[in-house]
Amino acid sequence: MTPITLRLRRIGIDTYQEPVVYMSSECSVGRSEGWEALTRLQVSHASHVVLATLHVVTSDLLGPHEVSLSDAAWRLLGASEGDVVHLSSPPPLESLSYLRSKVYGRRLDPPQLHAIVADIAAGRYSAVHLAAFVTACAGGRLDLDETIALTRAMIDVGERLVWKRGPIVDKHSVGGLPGNRTTMLVVPIVTSLGLTMPKTSSRAITSPAGTADAMETIAPVDLDLATMRRVVEREGGCIVWGGSARLSPADDVIIRVERPLDLDSEGQLVASVLSKKAAAGSTHVVIDIPVGPTAKVRGAEAATALGALFAAVGQALGFELRIEAGDGSQPIGRGIGPALEARDVLAVLRQDSEAPADLRERALVLAGSLVELATGRNPGTGYPFAQGALDRGDALRKLEGICAAQGGMHEPPVAGYRHAVLADRAGVIVSIDNRRLARVAKLAGAPKAPAAGLDLHVRLGSRVEPGQPLYTLHAEAPGELAYALEYQGSSGSSLTIGDPT
Amino acid sequence: MTPITLRLRRIGIDTYQEPVVYMSSECSVGRSEGWEALTRLQVSHASHVVLATLHVVTSDLLGPHEVSLSDAAWRLLGASEGDVVHLSSPPPLESLSYLRSKVYGRRLDPPQLHAIVADIAAGRYSAVHLAAFVTACAGGRLDLDETIALTRAMIDVGERLVWKRGPIVDKHSVGGLPGNRTTMLVVPIVTSLGLTMPKTSSRAITSPAGTADAMETIAPVDLDLATMRRVVEREGGCIVWGGSARLSPADDVIIRVERPLDLDSEGQLVASVLSKKAAAGSTHVVIDIPVGPTAKVRGAEAATALGALFAAVGQALGFELRIEAGDGSQPIGRGIGPALEARDVLAVLRQDSEAPADLRERALVLAGSLVELATGRNPGTGYPFAQGALDRGDALRKLEGICAAQGGMHEPPVAGYRHAVLADRAGVIVSIDNRRLARVAKLAGAPKAPAAGLDLHVRLGSRVEPGQPLYTLHAEAPGELAYALEYQGSSGSSLTIGDPT
Repeated sequence: MTPITLRLRRIGIDTYQEPVVYMSSECSVGRSEGWEALTRLQVSHASHVVLATLHVVTSDLLGPHEVSLSDAAWRLLGASEGDVVHLSSPPPLESLSYLRSKVYGRRLDPPQLHAIVADIAAGRYSAVHLAAFVTACAGGRLDLDETIALTRAMIDVGERLVWKRGPIVDKHSVGGLPGNRTTMLVVPIVTSLGLTMPKTSSRAITSPAGTADAMETIAPVDLDLATMRRVVEREGGCIVWGGSARLSPADDVIIRVERPLDLDSEGQLVASVLSKKAAAGSTHVVIDIPVGPTAKVRGAEAATALGALFAAVGQALGFELRIEAGDGSQPIGRGIGPALEARDVLAVLRQDSEAPADLRERALVLAGSLVELATGRNPGTGYPFAQGALDRGDALRKLEGICAAQGGMHEPPVAGYRHAVLADRAGVIVSIDNRRLARVAKLAGAPKAPAAGLDLHVRLGSRVEPGQPLYTLHAEAPGELAYALEYQGSSGSSLTIGDPT
Repeated sequence: MTPITLRLRRIGIDTYQEPVVYMSSECSVGRSEGWEALTRLQVSHASHVVLATLHVVTSDLLGPHEVSLSDAAWRLLGASEGDVVHLSSPPPLESLSYLRSKVYGRRLDPPQLHAIVADIAAGRYSAVHLAAFVTACAGGRLDLDETIALTRAMIDVGERLVWKRGPIVDKHSVGGLPGNRTTMLVVPIVTSLGLTMPKTSSRAITSPAGTADAMETIAPVDLDLATMRRVVEREGGCIVWGGSARLSPADDVIIRVERPLDLDSEGQLVASVLSKKAAAGSTHVVIDIPVGPTAKVRGAEAATALGALFAAVGQALGFELRIEAGDGSQPIGRGIGPALEARDVLAVLRQDSEAPADLRERALVLAGSLVELATGRNPGTGYPFAQGALDRGDALRKLEGICAAQGGMHEPPVAGYRHAVLADRAGVIVSIDNRRLARVAKLAGAPKAPAAGLDLHVRLGSRVEPGQPLYTLHAEAPGELAYALEYQGSSGSSLTIGDPT
């Protein structure tokens, strides 16, 4: 079939990551091909090919020989106004039949998973296909072999970093615990002790802030691979956003539908985490699993199962891997939201009297564990090394060095709109709902509005009086502040005040 | 939160059923609310409310106080150019937490399923949410109670027809068998015998033609409820598209993602079929299940399981229901595609010597079964009644009457582009791949191009010589013809020629 040739004209529509192609309903070739709204089309320009969804222009916005693209598709295609592009029907996607197999509950073999992941990484899946894949793999429907194969496929379709020195250490915290910003402490602690930790972090999927979001409030994180390599060579570590590095690029695409679905399954989680680690060249990895009734992992049994899956997949991929389960009954640190979490991190490094002790403690445990894993020391012997690095100020100087190397350090922004939520009775805080708190912080604008979120003034067991502030909402816009307040007022409390026992 | 007020301006973009709202990136209120591309927004105009996906206009196509809508959203909102609309963040959807429960494999109770279905019918689910729901229910992950509850919910959220006379009969063929256009024969046969059969049919989901698509090639099918009622009162039956009647409207929405996923699960299937039947007021229903290696139902065991699910859900909903399993090893009739299937139906009714005998036979079996079910006759006694109605010409006159009442009958269109696919060797047809044939017919343009599809010249067991036509492709455009040819040439044969035994 001869592709259709049309001339590009910019109409300027932003559809986020979803490539859209706009064509006039008067385009006779398109009509004769039977193309209509939502038809998937292949758009080619020089050596670039993009799969896009057709939206049909029914006005005179475009002429019959013109075509336009959503802003994301312009970028992917590297095209300019007036360029000629070719449109054609894409070949049928073989991997969709494997996707259907999985939906019907059948096992997939490694070549089938590789085909799916390759199509995902190349942008050939629509949002509907992605949603079906994520859903079909959720709820424990990927077995161990499938999870290993999925992880390998996700590594194979992207770039892979190779480092001259070793061992390369890394840590990952399984989400669901607001404010758990230990990575920004662990990296400077262990690199100041001589380990190499080239950290690629993610942005928030379903939480109010990812490490990349928090780090971005004090330094640039969107670095290309060459720049990242220079930072690591100079400082021994970095904290960058992994998305632009094309490490496990399928993962970055999958996140697009995990976010609106608020879904992040066990097999996908392990594949996502370990594919990023392997692609970043890591050899020694500590997995932090916070456990609590409203954390992502709710009980000891689930933590054991998830830990075992991490361990098994990690072993298959050749990692040295250790699980550190921890208390996830309440947020760690005080701030929830990118800038507020970065502020807590800086307070710990600067040894402010106000610094949250729980965040410091958890970071020291994880850093100590990494030191032991990487150097073969006995359990418990790593902690004092980590403590020394923090107390001597080495870790603070190291974070300053890393920020400078990444493009320059600045203080995190402060929100313009705040509102304190007060206790309505006297008593003791008997439970904290992490999910509700995270939801409130997101409604206040986090992570898109970096200064937004909330600042928690109490912890489990705190005594409160009527009218005492429980937490302060931070927002960058009055609408978002009102929206978060409306939710927290209508949805039952995030904090439960009980009678003192 | 105060909604934003903006003035509507038409820019003319067709996004099929997916409502999109276009807003300028310069709209300061939108920015302060944190709205960005793909944010879900509630658009209100007078008493109408639509949930739409935001696409951000980054050019001067819209001013900062203007807003536009996709063509579907204009229709849903009943708005005109220059009208003022209100935009706001939609309230969080409670039912998404039930959806996540289902994704994680938990059972849903009737109120939870009702909440999901109500949100779907109201257009509050995005394509991503719909895809997750369909996937989470596929592969046998809805149990019997859930399937009953889903069916009841789908009935409850739509209109329900009440008929003065009874019994109201209906039949449904489980898809997957190309050309199985018996409904257009069963309706005129049984209504000419005095039964009442107000048939609401669907358009194709994943097949080259649905009954509504085929019927539409000879008469209008897009009737409102009042018109449909008049047709049934006059003729005793009708064959209309059910989508505009708002019978089980959630089903019409779900189809939007089943199509790109090529997915149609057992529980969804039963809920879809029986909710439409109950909403249409049917009391006596025959379910036709074709069984064959490449039909939707591949073996006797699967047919028994699906039949049992239909029977159990049917009983819970108060239907008299009978299952008729039949041969699904090859297409029924010769044509595959809307107009070609309608042509076969007319040939049977007109008793042409060329009329496909298998289509006639299957329609008589189903019509006979319906007669027995509705009148309490013994098995086998209904067939002669059906045969008489066909042979006397009563059924032909009845279909002509129904078509006239629906708005006027005409002959089905004929495709302008054809190509015969020839046998490459001598032998006997030993297998027919229904799925591949359906795929070829779809690539040729069916069902969007009504005259497109294919005409099968051989059946299982036919002897063929080299160069003898196996089937003829029909297309309305040369591009589609070429595309179908390319696929059938590259994908292995739809028909297998073996040695005569």
